[in-house]
Amino acid sequence: MPLNSDVFQVPPGFNAPQQVHITQGDYVGKGVIISWTTPYEPGSNTVVYWSEYSKQKFRAEGIILTYTFYNYTSGFIHHCNISDLEYNTKYYYKIGIGYSARIFSFMTPPGVGPDIPYTFGLIGDLGQTYNSNTTLTHYEMNPMKGQTLLYVGDLSYADDWPFHNSVKWDTWGRFTERSAAYQPWIWTVGNHEIEFAPQLGETVPFKPFSSRYHTPYNASGSTTPFWYSIKRDSAHIIVLSSYSSYGKSSPQYTWLLQELPKVNRSETPWLIVLVHAPWYNSYYTHYMEGETMRVMYESILVQYKVDVVFAGHVHAYERSISFYTERISNIAYNITNAKCTRISNQFASVYITVGDGGNIEGLATSMTQPQPSYSAFHEASFGHGIFDIKNRAHAYFSWHRNQDGYAVEADSLWLFNRYWYPKNETTTSV
Amino acid sequence: MPLNSDVFQVPPGFNAPQQVHITQGDYVGKGVIISWTTPYEPGSNTVVYWSEYSKQKFRAEGIILTYTFYNYTSGFIHHCNISDLEYNTKYYYKIGIGYSARIFSFMTPPGVGPDIPYTFGLIGDLGQTYNSNTTLTHYEMNPMKGQTLLYVGDLSYADDWPFHNSVKWDTWGRFTERSAAYQPWIWTVGNHEIEFAPQLGETVPFKPFSSRYHTPYNASGSTTPFWYSIKRDSAHIIVLSSYSSYGKSSPQYTWLLQELPKVNRSETPWLIVLVHAPWYNSYYTHYMEGETMRVMYESILVQYKVDVVFAGHVHAYERSISFYTERISNIAYNITNAKCTRISNQFASVYITVGDGGNIEGLATSMTQPQPSYSAFHEASFGHGIFDIKNRAHAYFSWHRNQDGYAVEADSLWLFNRYWYPKNETTTSV
Repeated sequence: MPLNSDVFQVPPGFNAPQQVHITQGDYVGKGVIISWTTPYEPGSNTVVYWSEYSKQKFRAEGIILTYTFYNYTSGFIHHCNISDLEYNTKYYYKIGIGYSARIFSFMTPPGVGPDIPYTFGLIGDLGQTYNSNTTLTHYEMNPMKGQTLLYVGDLSYADDWPFHNSVKWDTWGRFTERSAAYQPWIWTVGNHEIEFAPQLGETVPFKPFSSRYHTPYNASGSTTPFWYSIKRDSAHIIVLSSYSSYGKSSPQYTWLLQELPKVNRSETPWLIVLVHAPWYNSYYTHYMEGETMRVMYESILVQYKVDVVFAGHVHAYERSISFYTERISNIAYNITNAKCTRISNQFASVYITVGDGGNIEGLATSMTQPQPSYSAFHEASFGHGIFDIKNRAHAYFSWHRNQDGYAVEADSLWLFNRYWYPKNETTTSV
Repeated sequence: MPLNSDVFQVPPGFNAPQQVHITQGDYVGKGVIISWTTPYEPGSNTVVYWSEYSKQKFRAEGIILTYTFYNYTSGFIHHCNISDLEYNTKYYYKIGIGYSARIFSFMTPPGVGPDIPYTFGLIGDLGQTYNSNTTLTHYEMNPMKGQTLLYVGDLSYADDWPFHNSVKWDTWGRFTERSAAYQPWIWTVGNHEIEFAPQLGETVPFKPFSSRYHTPYNASGSTTPFWYSIKRDSAHIIVLSSYSSYGKSSPQYTWLLQELPKVNRSETPWLIVLVHAPWYNSYYTHYMEGETMRVMYESILVQYKVDVVFAGHVHAYERSISFYTERISNIAYNITNAKCTRISNQFASVYITVGDGGNIEGLATSMTQPQPSYSAFHEASFGHGIFDIKNRAHAYFSWHRNQDGYAVEADSLWLFNRYWYPKNETTTSV
């Protein structure tokens, strides 16, 4: 979209806070990280916040940082972590000074526990084109009302522009504010966040992303923002990085093997993994890129009965199971036994790709032929997903295409929880 | 070995330089990085050096750094890069002050070019036990006279001790000085260099290693010390990191795909890869750990006709070919074709594991049964390897066990160059 599009509009008032976004700020959903940018001067670093049930106002102080990338210098980026919130409560928060102050609001989750329905949105590879805007509007207008967005990587696509035009990070922040300021977006890093550009003198991976988007990695014992986990309602969500080291003995691997045994399925029945590059992908684009991680992690996920793995990266939609196609895994291979075909596996994850946010690179339309058995359904249309947890046993996933009406489900499937109800989705009705 | 062993002896004189070691300092072998530690005060940072053919003395200034790890503070670590040396020349170098000064020497390589014979030693997973000392002595006494040592990772094993006892880094530096001060040791990182220890508040991977051991990564356009390449004599040596990110779009992947097309087989006929975790391993220990990297990189190495991949990690010896067993690859798998068996491939690399340096963890003695076809020979004995380049077509690899006499070859094979003489080693005599 052109720079003067209304979706990129700068809020009125001198140095007004812009690019406002929130994410979960702790392990259990009682904390929120509020982030915003002021363009001209640091301004106030205070967040004033209050519950809709109370006149008492609280104040929290954040941090301010700036960064440079090649010839670009960022505005003043604020991050403020507010904590000890009440569950299931609407909070208002105010940032900025005087006439430039702005007020937003969000809902805290119902708590952490089984059997509380909750609805996650799913968007990946959004970018900032007209299609991106349609995707975001459809997500906002979807009557299923996603309460928290799981974002599976590739945000602004600034790096697709000459010299990684970092202004695109600012416009993307303004574009997504209309949702991300009001509900948490849970961040996964994608390849467009790496911005490894020795030719520009920029060799620290993820520099712009990690300056602008904070994650609550400390709370889950992680040591970097790129892999971490949160509990939210009845879900334990594990975020992995396709673009950090993940071999055995690596920090990410070490962390994951410490985190998985901590998952308490009685508290959080639903175990969800987010990763950018899909491990099962039938499109030519990025075909087999996920293999290096799949051969390392698939058996671990089966062991811990992960319910579903959401990925982006491929600009299309795909899912691994259907009413006719069972969950599959490919973990029997031991180098010498030649067993490298997928087989039905009751404890395998469902794999869903939603890299169809609508970015500047367009759709991935070429699919490998014939359609492999791990690809129960695939379609190259822009859209978003909704993962609607009903109870400890059932969740309903739906895919919503941009060309359809807001209430239309272009595709859907019931998922049965692998811990509480590990039946085949093919053979058992809800 | 006990701390008071003579191999760990501190050199005489106040603050005398210790733990002296050298490595190649540039892309082509005309530079050397000289490193040493002074225990009590920074001392002089000057290297005085001269050719044996000249009375002219040169001076170079290095840098000094210290680091902390948990409750340990390092001595003053010096790194000095001397450059523009003459090829095929013996140089002397002097470090330290007054009575504590010490003089060492090294030979520069014959140049960069085909058909100049050169001999590389190979040691991995050395540690600092009695077995380690036997390995190093055998390497020094080997009549084949390794001129440069290719070190395939896992150095001091300090992290096997309580709180990663960093004093073990100092003793290892003193132990290996008797070789590493006189010939370049080319460093590969192993898992024992990661030292990711959140429980000790240490979360920067490779901190002690990268403080103590520098590599000429800048010279080959790399941005970190953990992957890089050098040309030396008739070899182009590519060092990879098993414990950094290596997925598609990662900095390491990006660098490798830029580096491989630069290899000029007319100048450097021999293309060698060093990596810590082997991609073909028939021992139970670390079985299949290399898969995540193999599925990513094996086809690339075949494409560029890499001659040989040396690895460590498994505390034993193994090689993938013999006079009866052809080179093999396993790169036909495309997820759906079930082709995951190894087949003969004229342009596959030879895989040789020499993780048998003799460290504190002992030998890997359990092998998978039956012996897989990619394992032409394997034996769990401590030892080292020699890779003896004869000309652009032929190189001779030999394995030397600690229990044998210095001149004994426990195993050997001829390798034929994949670019200049891509015949099967099984069917063609030298």
